[in-house]
Amino acid sequence: MTNRSTLSLKGVFTPLATPFDEQDEFAPEKLVSNINKLNQTGLNGYVVLGSNGEYVYLSEKEKMEVLNIARQVIPKDKLMIAGTGCESTRNTIALTLQAAEIGADAVIIVNPSYYKSEMTVPVLAAHYQKIADVSPIPVIIYNFPPGTSIDLSAELLVRLSHHPNIIGVKDTGGLMPKMGETIYQVAPGFQVLAGSASFLFPSLAIGAVGGVLALGNIAPLQCLEIYRLFCAGDIENGRALHLRMLPVNAAITTRFGVSGLKAAMEMLGYQGGLPRSPLLPLPETQKQELQTILKTGGLL
Amino acid sequence: MTNRSTLSLKGVFTPLATPFDEQDEFAPEKLVSNINKLNQTGLNGYVVLGSNGEYVYLSEKEKMEVLNIARQVIPKDKLMIAGTGCESTRNTIALTLQAAEIGADAVIIVNPSYYKSEMTVPVLAAHYQKIADVSPIPVIIYNFPPGTSIDLSAELLVRLSHHPNIIGVKDTGGLMPKMGETIYQVAPGFQVLAGSASFLFPSLAIGAVGGVLALGNIAPLQCLEIYRLFCAGDIENGRALHLRMLPVNAAITTRFGVSGLKAAMEMLGYQGGLPRSPLLPLPETQKQELQTILKTGGLL
Amino acid sequence: MTNRSTLSLKGVFTPLATPFDEQDEFAPEKLVSNINKLNQTGLNGYVVLGSNGEYVYLSEKEKMEVLNIARQVIPKDKLMIAGTGCESTRNTIALTLQAAEIGADAVIIVNPSYYKSEMTVPVLAAHYQKIADVSPIPVIIYNFPPGTSIDLSAELLVRLSHHPNIIGVKDTGGLMPKMGETIYQVAPGFQVLAGSASFLFPSLAIGAVGGVLALGNIAPLQCLEIYRLFCAGDIENGRALHLRMLPVNAAITTRFGVSGLKAAMEMLGYQGGLPRSPLLPLPETQKQELQTILKTGGLL
Amino acid sequence: MTNRSTLSLKGVFTPLATPFDEQDEFAPEKLVSNINKLNQTGLNGYVVLGSNGEYVYLSEKEKMEVLNIARQVIPKDKLMIAGTGCESTRNTIALTLQAAEIGADAVIIVNPSYYKSEMTVPVLAAHYQKIADVSPIPVIIYNFPPGTSIDLSAELLVRLSHHPNIIGVKDTGGLMPKMGETIYQVAPGFQVLAGSASFLFPSLAIGAVGGVLALGNIAPLQCLEIYRLFCAGDIENGRALHLRMLPVNAAITTRFGVSGLKAAMEMLGYQGGLPRSPLLPLPETQKQELQTILKTGGLL
Repeated sequence: MTNRSTLSLKGVFTPLATPFDEQDEFAPEKLVSNINKLNQTGLNGYVVLGSNGEYVYLSEKEKMEVLNIARQVIPKDKLMIAGTGCESTRNTIALTLQAAEIGADAVIIVNPSYYKSEMTVPVLAAHYQKIADVSPIPVIIYNFPPGTSIDLSAELLVRLSHHPNIIGVKDTGGLMPKMGETIYQVAPGFQVLAGSASFLFPSLAIGAVGGVLALGNIAPLQCLEIYRLFCAGDIENGRALHLRMLPVNAAITTRFGVSGLKAAMEMLGYQGGLPRSPLLPLPETQKQELQTILKTGGLL
Repeated sequence: MTNRSTLSLKGVFTPLATPFDEQDEFAPEKLVSNINKLNQTGLNGYVVLGSNGEYVYLSEKEKMEVLNIARQVIPKDKLMIAGTGCESTRNTIALTLQAAEIGADAVIIVNPSYYKSEMTVPVLAAHYQKIADVSPIPVIIYNFPPGTSIDLSAELLVRLSHHPNIIGVKDTGGLMPKMGETIYQVAPGFQVLAGSASFLFPSLAIGAVGGVLALGNIAPLQCLEIYRLFCAGDIENGRALHLRMLPVNAAITTRFGVSGLKAAMEMLGYQGGLPRSPLLPLPETQKQELQTILKTGGLL
Repeated sequence: MTNRSTLSLKGVFTPLATPFDEQDEFAPEKLVSNINKLNQTGLNGYVVLGSNGEYVYLSEKEKMEVLNIARQVIPKDKLMIAGTGCESTRNTIALTLQAAEIGADAVIIVNPSYYKSEMTVPVLAAHYQKIADVSPIPVIIYNFPPGTSIDLSAELLVRLSHHPNIIGVKDTGGLMPKMGETIYQVAPGFQVLAGSASFLFPSLAIGAVGGVLALGNIAPLQCLEIYRLFCAGDIENGRALHLRMLPVNAAITTRFGVSGLKAAMEMLGYQGGLPRSPLLPLPETQKQELQTILKTGGLL
Repeated sequence: MTNRSTLSLKGVFTPLATPFDEQDEFAPEKLVSNINKLNQTGLNGYVVLGSNGEYVYLSEKEKMEVLNIARQVIPKDKLMIAGTGCESTRNTIALTLQAAEIGADAVIIVNPSYYKSEMTVPVLAAHYQKIADVSPIPVIIYNFPPGTSIDLSAELLVRLSHHPNIIGVKDTGGLMPKMGETIYQVAPGFQVLAGSASFLFPSLAIGAVGGVLALGNIAPLQCLEIYRLFCAGDIENGRALHLRMLPVNAAITTRFGVSGLKAAMEMLGYQGGLPRSPLLPLPETQKQELQTILKTGGLL
């Protein structure tokens, strides 16, 4: 086969929120504002159309708009990674080709999950291989058990790591034994990214090269600092910052979800706006709780 | 509020498979052939674009094609129920309006499930209410835990049962305590349908009015006979047929999935064709197992 | 092999609560009082030392006391079934032999579950076979997923059904597809019992021969009436009573647990007493809720 | 209240296997042999009667024998921690008092789990507090979801951390977000131990003070070296050894269980013997697999 793609995934990436306007339509200027602001930090790149980007609530046309707008403001020294996973292989391929056309540097592809009992290792392996075979840009696997209720096995990841166009995995499962097993066995050069700030630091300890962090939307500097401290061998300070960020990270992910993330963005000077229905805006009492958490975390 | 919709869901419904041709494109003539054949039986109606219809693998355009074709061959004395659930409320409403326009008698709507931890009772209640408020045709809730990893609670179903345009639920969870609790508490006239032949018979015993059965694609007469025997009070013969159908039903659902269903259709004179990728065609060894099961079940 | 044991498990059985006194010691006179009262009904027998009997909180010495006392007041025309399951095969056998010595008619044995990942079909099959080989009295398998987090498979039950000294299963999992599959495949004469009133009625519809029902501790006549109505073919009235009992049954099992069961017993003239720690007595607010439920159910 | 117990749990502890003889009886001389051998290493102590010690398969009398024997050969500079958890509070207290009498330095107590739905935070908090109130020696909480199917919440651990006689937790759940949240919030001095070598290294990174490691039974030096490398700030070599041990650790825990652990002990010069039924001896083919794994891991 051809040589492995050599795109480096080292560092910290942010899965961008997709802002909507008062009429519940995609608000390009808000996205541009957010990216411009984040561009000032040392973030290594962005995932556009990830789970935090409410990609499941966007039409195909809207997805293209979002990618196009993002491409215009993401500078060439930061990676633009497009989320193009669909339930079917053909739709995923179609979206992947469009993302490459628009100029994405890589795609990140969540596994199909509707027919769970049939999503065996051979089925998922064939799915990813068909896509990677035709994708003009490198493919990153996206393991997202909170959404798919499937935790991609080390066996599958190891198998796929040998495809020259599959360069890594964003693992939001966060199980250390499996992540370690994966890192130990994958083909050389295959890169593992932590899928949440809640386990970035210990993941780095066992060999992850970086993270794709929702937290980067509101605390990019803290995320980068955790990464820098680890790389500098300063475990004690890295751990302290990691622990301090845990309640903040929980608030914008597992506790209050995308509604919490968008509310936090608004509180911190980003353009969050409201989530799309069925997601509901964060209720007032939870907003106050969120505010307290952001203050305690040193962000407000 | 207005009066409750009075569409009867009594009896046996079949969630139609969506056949594809050799080029993996929707094959209208195959669908027509299947429906024409099933029309000869006493089936009370069809679900078009259900889980067995691989709706998650169809583009929006294809969905409209399938609905249009189905509408042409489903006679007026059988219900045409369209699957229009999407992750977002707005996409679900759009598809629902289109289905009504095409002439569907009702819609069946699977719950959004990607952001699982946020799919609370209030969130899902608001979602369904917004849709039912604007849908010109009655709404049926679709509870499908094998796909969504969420089992809609009795509390939610009871709450929604009071909406005049929400007329019932297809429950594929199949937990008798919850189904009983639901039946006991819902608003009068709200109808519960068993979501699988694997628990149709006991569901009828506790008050379900019928079923939406994948098995109806290959054994419509047996499904109808189980229903008839129950209604006639012939528990002994009903149970015997129910038990005999269990291995057949498992083969085309939990064991071999849509791939198994389509293979069985081919064996029994229907136009199954192949499933779409990532689903793979049933392997040869499993085909032989399936054949044996169909023979033992008296279908071949 | 020898002939199958022919003990009939048809009908309704009650898993007796174990009452304690003010000093938290086993209170024999309370147990006697309860059994004497229940003896007046048509119950077909009792399980002593079941989950509702808090068997996991009793010392081995206490277990023997409870069995001895129960044996003295359970008449010969009602079955006395002793719960003798332990984690190890040798302890289970020892307890089984003692129960037989005391005069139990059968034993009911919950599967070991501590080393869950190792409790494979061969391991559990060997366990039950070793016990059944030496037990002087028939063995009933006890499937209790709420406690063990293991749902014994139809495959295991079918395999064990061929042992002449294993006569049935109490299934508290309550999944109709699996129960049906089991009933369809087990050796002739092997008897399936519903493990809860929440699914007794539909279980009878698919071939269960009866039930072991916590509800029997407080509503024995209603349990018996549900069973009688089903046997008489009166589905409509049977269903109505089944549905009416659901909230009552939930209150003393899944909702408020043994604490709720014992509180309900006290409210209804039985000797419940308090549960053992770590279980806590039912709080006052929940007691009031329970009282309302009992009234609505027609028991108070 | 009194001051917090100050027993240090820093370092590496081994949960000892309990060896049986040919007649399936406890074999004291084998246990003595193992401990004497392990005493030569720098292990910081032992857990006696833990999950790896098959404590659920021992009678109460056997438990005392094991503790007594262990006490005789565990030197005073290594901790002897006794597993005394039972389902009931009173049995746990009784066993705890006996262990203290025998001279254990601390007890480690698994949470009750049979009545899962009732094991709420208040119930479990009261359970542990009652025990810690009367225990003459410090109490360590034992979180073991693989056996209990309950993952003790950070909320519970934080609450219990304020009891002066509850000094730490062995967490075998291994979820980094929860472990981090716990470490961040517990009372000063409360110590978190990793419950498996599969996540010891990343746990140390976020503030765990050590581990209780089944792997210590067969690879004590490697476990100690992982700990030492981390403390020395040598992340790279620590990670390498951590990753190399993963397949070995999996083989004696999640893959082959206690049967695998005992077989590995035999291969490596320890006195493993056979597990008790229902556990079965490791089959020959798996023994060969295990041998290969031990060789690849550098142990054989």
